[in-house]
Parts: sequence; structure tokens; C-alpha cells
Amino acid sequence: MAVTGIVAEFNPFHYGHKYLLEQAEGLKIVAMSGNFVQRGEPAIVDKWTRAQMALENGADIVVELPFQVAVQSADYFAQGAVDILSTMGADTLAFGTEEDLDYSEIARIYEEKAEQMTAFLETLDDSLSYPQKTQKMWESFTGIDFSGNTPNHILALAYAKASAGKNLRLQPIKRQGAAYHSQEKNQMMASATAIRKHISDRTFVLQSTPSSELLLMAPQVNWENYFDLVRYHILSQEQLDHVFQVNQEIANRLKSAIVHVHSIEELVDKVSTKRYTKARVRRILTYILVNARENNLPNGVHVLGFTEKGQEHLKKMKKSISIVSRIGAVPWDQQTQTADRIYQLGHSDIKEQNFGRSPIRIEKLG
Amino acid sequence: MAVTGIVAEFNPFHYGHKYLLEQAEGLKIVAMSGNFVQRGEPAIVDKWTRAQMALENGADIVVELPFQVAVQSADYFAQGAVDILSTMGADTLAFGTEEDLDYSEIARIYEEKAEQMTAFLETLDDSLSYPQKTQKMWESFTGIDFSGNTPNHILALAYAKASAGKNLRLQPIKRQGAAYHSQEKNQMMASATAIRKHISDRTFVLQSTPSSELLLMAPQVNWENYFDLVRYHILSQEQLDHVFQVNQEIANRLKSAIVHVHSIEELVDKVSTKRYTKARVRRILTYILVNARENNLPNGVHVLGFTEKGQEHLKKMKKSISIVSRIGAVPWDQQTQTADRIYQLGHSDIKEQNFGRSPIRIEKLG
Repeated sequence: MAVTGIVAEFNPFHYGHKYLLEQAEGLKIVAMSGNFVQRGEPAIVDKWTRAQMALENGADIVVELPFQVAVQSADYFAQGAVDILSTMGADTLAFGTEEDLDYSEIARIYEEKAEQMTAFLETLDDSLSYPQKTQKMWESFTGIDFSGNTPNHILALAYAKASAGKNLRLQPIKRQGAAYHSQEKNQMMASATAIRKHISDRTFVLQSTPSSELLLMAPQVNWENYFDLVRYHILSQEQLDHVFQVNQEIANRLKSAIVHVHSIEELVDKVSTKRYTKARVRRILTYILVNARENNLPNGVHVLGFTEKGQEHLKKMKKSISIVSRIGAVPWDQQTQTADRIYQLGHSDIKEQNFGRSPIRIEKLG
Repeated sequence: MAVTGIVAEFNPFHYGHKYLLEQAEGLKIVAMSGNFVQRGEPAIVDKWTRAQMALENGADIVVELPFQVAVQSADYFAQGAVDILSTMGADTLAFGTEEDLDYSEIARIYEEKAEQMTAFLETLDDSLSYPQKTQKMWESFTGIDFSGNTPNHILALAYAKASAGKNLRLQPIKRQGAAYHSQEKNQMMASATAIRKHISDRTFVLQSTPSSELLLMAPQVNWENYFDLVRYHILSQEQLDHVFQVNQEIANRLKSAIVHVHSIEELVDKVSTKRYTKARVRRILTYILVNARENNLPNGVHVLGFTEKGQEHLKKMKKSISIVSRIGAVPWDQQTQTADRIYQLGHSDIKEQNFGRSPIRIEKLG
């Protein structure tokens, strides 16, 4: 039986994700972001709710990406997630994409020319953002055309790159329905962005998400629930450059902007530049919010839930890797757990996220 | 003409304070806490409002105590404040007290025996709180009876101690009306505690404070407006012992208590012990809130306001000391100004507290 790995955020889980899981083959392992996501913001609902939605709709195992993998630029995000899936025994990597490309060929090229490609990046002008640089790299070495540039496209290329040398079969799955950033509501498969935007429109949420009740009943948050805390952090710390990825330049920009703004979006607008993209600034604000430091990744893999079929696989994996299924006095990953504590501050109904919580078990035939 | 110095918090200003100012002689200089007060909490209204109330009711000059003088145990508070008043040319120190004691004699004893008295403190058991120790010290060396122990009594003794060797005439003024901590409303002169407690009772506030409208119209805060920020600080910082007066023991106690409490008062209750008094814990929480460090005191004296009579005196003083009347790009005291920024976070209507603000001028005949 194939073991398919899928990297996901499910922010929130919707019919597009369900379709992706249906297209994937064999046992399906999802490596999912925890309570903070790649674009640098809190997830709309907590990791347990999102894991349960996934398990009720096709996933067999959901494991958690540590904070410092989940909140990273595309390359680090993909690398960290693919490493975990590979450790978990995946032989196939399935991912959504808007483009019909030969990703295996792209991975092969990267495997062959990784050094030249990395060297090429170094030669590019520093006025370009990192995404712009990688785009130029792919264009030069593979001839890909970025005219239809989309976030999933960039992520898919990052997966190809991350799986180079890993003996993983790549299975791109063409996305159905709305594009990633679409805020349109009138589509069969609404995007996660549209659902977050219209989360208070119950009818729309019921139409566009399976297991909708889980989503609707969970405490929902967005960046603005954390604005006061971020502002306080920036104002109260004389130095900010102990925080991961904060340099003196960005610290100064944040310190002078913070006294004039009233929301995270205003702050991001004021601080972002061509080189400091909005996504990068949002990630930096997330690092500041949770006071992130440069840290080692945890050794164990934290399991959020599984089906019976998934449980069989976990039993086998336990012999060779460290599976963390319940976090007690010894932390799994201090950084992620601190981030979770702070995530809880965004809404008084968010439950304890780690200590003593057991994986979700979905009883169904494998 | 006598120049009388008065140490005050005016939290808020009431008829008892007005009486004290009336009893004082000559030019009246008040050294007042800024936005955080000695017992370790945010002042109910900002320093500008409190200074204006004082200037409208008898004070000639109001200068600001730097944060690290204002939020300190009685001895350091008194010492820092008396030093500033002495620098400002005060020859008399007036203060309220419940006890008719010969404070000049007490100051004389301290002047003579300071070393023995300090050595005596060292011999006392560490299970005693600092206030308990100083109480024993005064009992042993001066025979004072502490049966009617009150905060003002302790402060008055601290003033006596602080003025030792300073050539300051001590003028104790017997308090009228309610005792310091009284929460009773039915008294001619209500205590500041009672007024804070019943701040939403407009009739009571009008009865017990002069210049009531200033108080009633100002944005009012209390500790609970800052609970979310303190909780966030404790949760997000792996180490707390970089904060002034936070040691490993108190840091651990705070870290384990914070996940179980829902208010500052609950937190103080959980963390305080016989040795860590509630006042000390509140001060520590204030240090954490504003991220205070051990710092040097500022050189200049920050003037919050003056009458015409006060202005004459300031002109003379300017020749020998640094008077800061407007804070621009160069900070007066970074710690105080950071504390003020954070004070502002407690209520969205609190105005900028430092940058570009000029002293209050009250036009009246000297």
C-alpha cells in the first residue's frame, strides 16, 4: 500500500482539501501547521479542531509541524514538512497545484544542480525579495513561466526542491474551484481565504466546508485579537533583535510605526517594503508575538490524531522513530508550546493545547 | 519665605490633600509619582490630570518622580523623593501622619546611629518581610509603638530617615478624616482608596474631591486593565529574571500561577507569602509590566506644572540644576517614558504622556 504524505494548513479545512485527500492514494499522512500558519498569522481555529476535520474527511494520521517549521518562508516550510513526512514513512508526496508541470523533472534538475542554483540566488540583487529571487532561479534553470504566479505554485516548487534526493514520488493534484487568494464566495469550492473572510456567514460556511459544525463551534481568532499583545511587546522591549529574524533595521521600523497604528494590517502596511514583503513582515510579527528564538527542531513527531488504519501504521513507525502522543511535564517542543499558550490568549474559550491532551481517534474501517 | 517640599501620589487628589497643602507654609513643591504608584499599581488617572488637580488646590510646583523612585518600597521611595525636593531647594518637608511623634528627634537618632540600625536589620530573620524588619528596627532604637501601625506612619518614618543629614525641617501634619486604607464612604474626608473604589459614584466623587470634573472626565484605569499584558509577558518570556527585582524563586512562582488565574488580584493572592508581601508582589508585577531594569536615575527634574509663584522659583533653580520642562527627541528618563507608553495601553483615551507636552501653567497671584 502506498503511504502518501500531504503538507497542509487546513485554515480552515474545506471541500478542496477533501478532494485532495480523495485523490491521494493508500495511507494518508498529513503534516499540518499547528496554531500559527505559514503566511505569518494565527490559524482561524485551533490545531485540534482542524485535525479532527481532516480525520473525518480522509486523513489517516495528522502530525503537527513544529512552530519553527510552520511559520517559515516557502523553502524552509516545505523542507521541514517533507523531512517529517519522509521520517513517517511516506513514499509519495501529494500536493495541490494550479499548474500542470513535470515536478519530478524539476526535482531531478534541482538534485543535479542544487549548488549552482543556490549560487545563482547569491548573485541576485538584494533589492529583490526572496520569493522574487527563487522565481528567477526556477525560470533560469527550468524555463518555467511564472506569468500565472500563485502561492501554491511557489509551494509546489518548494516541495519538489525539498523532496530532491528523498526517493519520494511526487503526485501533483490539480486544484479545483477557487484560486488560493480568491475572496469570491460564488464558487463550488471556496478558498480558505474566502471562508476566513466570511466566517460569520453560516450558510456559506456550511456550503463550503465538510464537518462544518466543528469549525462553527470552535473559538475563532484572527490577527487583530493579538494586536494589543504585539504592540505591548514592541513597546516594552528596548531591544527586539533577540527575536528570530528581527534585525536592527526592522526593529527600528517597527518601533517608529507602532505608536501610529491601530491594527496589525496598518502596521504591516507601514513596515513592509519591496524587500520586506507583507508575508515576511507578518511572519516577523508572529515571531515577536510568541517571542521566538533560533532553536533546534524537536526530535519526536507530535501526533494530533489518527484513524484505525493510521494507528496500525503508527505502531510500526514507533519501532524506529520517536512518536509523541501525549505531552506531559517534559515538553515536546518548547517553542511550539509557548506559541500555543499565547494563541490561547486570543480567545478565552480556547482550551489548553498540549498538556495532557491525547490524540483524536476516529473509529472507522481502514 | 519657606520652601516646603511634599511627597505625594494624589491617587486621586482629594480634600485631605488640599488640607495638607493648606497647612504647609511658603512655596509648596510637590514631588509626585508619575503614572505608577508606590504600592505597585497604575494610577487611577494620568500624571497630568493629578498634577493639575494639585496646582488648582494649593501646590505651586509639581515635579515628577522617576518610575524607579515612585515604584519602590517605602525607604527607597522616601529617599528618592526627598533627594529631589532637597535639590529643588526645599528647606521644610511636610507630610501627613496619624501619629503625633517627634520626627525631628527620630531623624536625629537615625543620623547618629544609621550604621548600627542598618546592621541590626541584617541580623533579623529572613522570614520577616522588609516592612516588618524596619518596624522592629524603629521599635528597638526609638521605642516607637507600632500598635496603630498604618502605611502613612511607615512612610513618615521613612521621610524622617531620608531627611537625616539634609538640614530639612520636618513638619508632620495630622491627617484629618478617614484612615489611609479606609473604604468607608461616610466621612468628610474620604481616603484615596475609598475614592478609587467608588469612582463610578459621581455624587461621592463630587463630595470628596476638589476639581472633581478633571478626575471624572479623565480616562480611568486600574490593574485589571493591564492583566492581559502582564499575563502575556509572563507566558512569552522564558526567563523573567532580567526584570528588576525578579529572582528565580518569584519567577517560578509566577510562571506556575499564571495559567490558573484570571485577574491580577488572584495572581497576587497566589504568589504572595509572608516574606513576599502583596505590596512587594504588586511592585514586581509592575516591573514586569513595564519591563523595568536596574538603571541610573535621570539627572534632570521633570516639571509637570507650576503657578506664577512657582515659576519664579523655577527660574532661580534653573541656574544650578537641570530642569526638564519639555521632553523631545532626547528622553528625560527612558524607564519612565516606557512605563508611560505602557500605561497608555490601559485605556485608548489616554493621551501621549511625554513627547512635546509642556508643563501645566496655572495663572493665579502668588
